[in-house]
Amino acid sequence: MYCIIVYDISGDVVVKVCHFLRRYMNWIQNSVFEGELTKSQLYEIKTRLKTMINTETDSLLIYTVNSQKELSREQIGTPKRGTDRII
Amino acid sequence: MYCIIVYDISGDVVVKVCHFLRRYMNWIQNSVFEGELTKSQLYEIKTRLKTMINTETDSLLIYTVNSQKELSREQIGTPKRGTDRII
Repeated sequence: MYCIIVYDISGDVVVKVCHFLRRYMNWIQNSVFEGELTKSQLYEIKTRLKTMINTETDSLLIYTVNSQKELSREQIGTPKRGTDRII
Repeated sequence: MYCIIVYDISGDVVVKVCHFLRRYMNWIQNSVFEGELTKSQLYEIKTRLKTMINTETDSLLIYTVNSQKELSREQIGTPKRGTDRII
């Protein structure tokens, strides 16, 4: 399946989350990752992220489609790929 | 078509963008809107957003699927629906 993860996370944990997600997915924009994942990879990601974030203050959205072909993406502007969040 | 818009925008323009998008779409999480749009609505949104943002520093992602049925969404944590960004 093809997944998009959008996070809204405060504090230093955002760096850890980015590092973790980069193992499985591609960084598309600040706070947005995309990638083809197996069901077990997605389960692993969800389980791990739940332990990393503060579920009372942080938020994660996980969108899935069966195939990347079903999804169209358009980008307007310039994605911020600064090193402030990704080390 | 069903659309997801994720923005990464700096400064006060973010408030204007939120106000504008709320006319057409639902606010799901900080920086994320979703909604069923016609082609002409999507065209209108894209055209208007291009004039609002700084295309050299800001970024917008527009994902579209033919039908909401093709898309699955899961939320982990608590979305921040504070009034700091939405007035």
